[in-house]
Amino acid sequence: MSTQPEHNNTLDQLSSALDSGELKRMRFMLNKGLRPVEAAKLLEKTPPRERQILWNLVSKENEGKVLQHLGDDVQADIVSRMDASELLAATEGLDSDDMADMMQQMPERLMREVLRIMDKQNRKRVEKLLSYPEDTAGGLMNTDTVTIRPDITVETVLRYLRRHTDVPQDTDSLFVVSRKDSFIGVLPLTRLLTSDPQVMVREIMRTEQAAIPATLPDQEVARLFEDEDLVSAPVVDESGKLLGRITIDDVVDVIREDADHSLMSMAGLDEDEDTFAPVLRTTRRRAVWLGINLITAFIASAVIGLFEGTLEQVVALAVLMPIVASMGGIAGSQTLTLVIRGQALGHIERGNIGWLFNRELIAGALNGTLWALVVAAVAVVWFGDTTVGIVIALAIVINLLAGAMAGTLLPMALKSAGIDPALAGSVLLTTITDVVGFFAFLGLATLFFG
Amino acid sequence: MSTQPEHNNTLDQLSSALDSGELKRMRFMLNKGLRPVEAAKLLEKTPPRERQILWNLVSKENEGKVLQHLGDDVQADIVSRMDASELLAATEGLDSDDMADMMQQMPERLMREVLRIMDKQNRKRVEKLLSYPEDTAGGLMNTDTVTIRPDITVETVLRYLRRHTDVPQDTDSLFVVSRKDSFIGVLPLTRLLTSDPQVMVREIMRTEQAAIPATLPDQEVARLFEDEDLVSAPVVDESGKLLGRITIDDVVDVIREDADHSLMSMAGLDEDEDTFAPVLRTTRRRAVWLGINLITAFIASAVIGLFEGTLEQVVALAVLMPIVASMGGIAGSQTLTLVIRGQALGHIERGNIGWLFNRELIAGALNGTLWALVVAAVAVVWFGDTTVGIVIALAIVINLLAGAMAGTLLPMALKSAGIDPALAGSVLLTTITDVVGFFAFLGLATLFFG
Repeated sequence: MSTQPEHNNTLDQLSSALDSGELKRMRFMLNKGLRPVEAAKLLEKTPPRERQILWNLVSKENEGKVLQHLGDDVQADIVSRMDASELLAATEGLDSDDMADMMQQMPERLMREVLRIMDKQNRKRVEKLLSYPEDTAGGLMNTDTVTIRPDITVETVLRYLRRHTDVPQDTDSLFVVSRKDSFIGVLPLTRLLTSDPQVMVREIMRTEQAAIPATLPDQEVARLFEDEDLVSAPVVDESGKLLGRITIDDVVDVIREDADHSLMSMAGLDEDEDTFAPVLRTTRRRAVWLGINLITAFIASAVIGLFEGTLEQVVALAVLMPIVASMGGIAGSQTLTLVIRGQALGHIERGNIGWLFNRELIAGALNGTLWALVVAAVAVVWFGDTTVGIVIALAIVINLLAGAMAGTLLPMALKSAGIDPALAGSVLLTTITDVVGFFAFLGLATLFFG
Repeated sequence: MSTQPEHNNTLDQLSSALDSGELKRMRFMLNKGLRPVEAAKLLEKTPPRERQILWNLVSKENEGKVLQHLGDDVQADIVSRMDASELLAATEGLDSDDMADMMQQMPERLMREVLRIMDKQNRKRVEKLLSYPEDTAGGLMNTDTVTIRPDITVETVLRYLRRHTDVPQDTDSLFVVSRKDSFIGVLPLTRLLTSDPQVMVREIMRTEQAAIPATLPDQEVARLFEDEDLVSAPVVDESGKLLGRITIDDVVDVIREDADHSLMSMAGLDEDEDTFAPVLRTTRRRAVWLGINLITAFIASAVIGLFEGTLEQVVALAVLMPIVASMGGIAGSQTLTLVIRGQALGHIERGNIGWLFNRELIAGALNGTLWALVVAAVAVVWFGDTTVGIVIALAIVINLLAGAMAGTLLPMALKSAGIDPALAGSVLLTTITDVVGFFAFLGLATLFFG
């Protein structure tokens, strides 16, 4: 195994520290005691140094099986320390789609090298899969399908299957194709089993389920599987030729990542983020997000700076101003989250955004009025100044309306501009509610007290 | 259909407004043109009044099939306007698990009423399912399994299946049970099809996949399906008796809701939230969240209020103070999101939280120092005052450390206390970073300028 010197060092130290019995026990657990998916989970929840040690204890035969179950970030990390021949050995015996997935995580140079030393048949198959972007039906599919012709009997199919000892995992149906490999229909195993042996495949196959084009985005594939409760589905090229099939296990990963994406993006994180990434990588990635948000904070400060005179005059304004910005931000981010989730579920479109905008505006006005009265009452009692109460009440209503508008329109605008609303939405929303909040509050105060 | 007077009113108006040809076209589309899952999607993305009109156009036979595909919030809304006999008619012909799911959304009184008028066999089946909490394996399962005995040949099984014209959807394996219905093993259809007809079931069944106990929480069921790439799995009671099976389509819903839960909770929303909920319901739900967050804002204001004297003296502090609170909040919420996601994925436990805490603290110190220097430089140039620069730099470092600590420890503490970290975490985190941020900044300023 090629590891960087520092890691070998650590490993050596730890090897001598741990008695050999302990290491043997760990090696056994990783390769025999745990299934590959469990070994992968263990690696994912281990800090970097210990993770490297554990990885070195995984046996050659298990490397590929464990690798394929790791999250993208962790996988890329381990793969970057292996060379092409190690990788080829590790990935032998994997499904071609899992092999292609893993290769997509490799640096370009390493990927080319692995392809070069691969045997010809495998190379062709993997290159075919690599030709489709990772986030399309083509990138999700594997090529191990069982195909039959329409003009044979059920009995012939049964006899044919009995000669196969190894039908691919998750096979719930056979695909019916023409002589030229054009997709014609699907024969579910349950239907095969309940049909008269003398019946022709043509008579019992299902043709109402359309095949999935290889270029369909993976999120739409996931929606199709969810809506139609599919377990597997055929994938075809533009001429209708059967290319492979997508199975539910790969779709479940898409659904999980898709749903994690919004959550993580709203905090400026990547959905594949390694929970136990090393400190320097973490610091670097977070620094970017903090820098972007600092711009927002400076803009807010600049707005406050416009009203230094008023603040000097009435110090109560400085005490109360965060309330206005905060209430607008909270209300806006509720709307924003609802709209982003609605977009992900395919609920929101041109025809109903108007209704949603109005509802958010009315809800914002009602809640704005309610809480404006509460805050105003507290402010008047606190500072014994009715004007401060009036000013903050007006500013809160204005800012909740701004939050409702920004929360609805921002994700729509960002999406049409091809920018991820989950990533950019929260920063922009905060900028808007901070600027409007401080400007409305201090601006009104300047008018009233000026 | 029993609708509230105002809805009938709207419907009447619209009925006369729309020419009857248009209504016929819509009725056809809802019942014939679209599949039930598509009709449900259409209802979900329609504002409340139009939704009620559309629902009235769904034919009696389709009501149940459309209802079962609706989100919980929308479903409960429609169900609350139906009476028991309408509901019973609508749910006839559904899988028993879908019927039980729907009944769990009904008000207690209505559920009892539906059960009372149900035929005896169905009532027993549904009551059995209702006896398990919705979020356990028992609540997810349905009872339509195909079971066989271990001591028969493959040929007998094939003959038996051929007599069934209707094997339940998503059947990928048969369950092998004893005479007393105890679960023994699983016979995948693929194995059945590739085996010699003379072989006994006992010899080819798989026994390595354990059955799922009915009390297992649904999130763990989902993890099991994901880890083992299952399509269906048997569910047993504490004595090992087969109760039913869980299929991947229901598990996919759990995965989707589970992942949506963190996103929506962090904004104080429910994962089942109807995107097009009526304005008053929306206002009421949001008001609670705004009220809770207002407490946070008042606490922050109270902290600022402690330093009125210093703020009056140096107005630059009022201009810059939101930057300190904002940077701490952003850094803290990145840590918080990562930890909450890590908890959901089962990555975080007692053994590795120490490492994570240290990493976050170091990353916070590094990023704190970096951005403190940037902000200090800007502040010195802006206000021509070195002391302000020193004070804000120190406060930013302190607040990023507070954010890192709170972001790591809060979700751990909340989870052990049985409180949902996604729901309570962000409010508490903001309270901490606001209080620490304002206190550190204005407190240090009071020391330096006092």
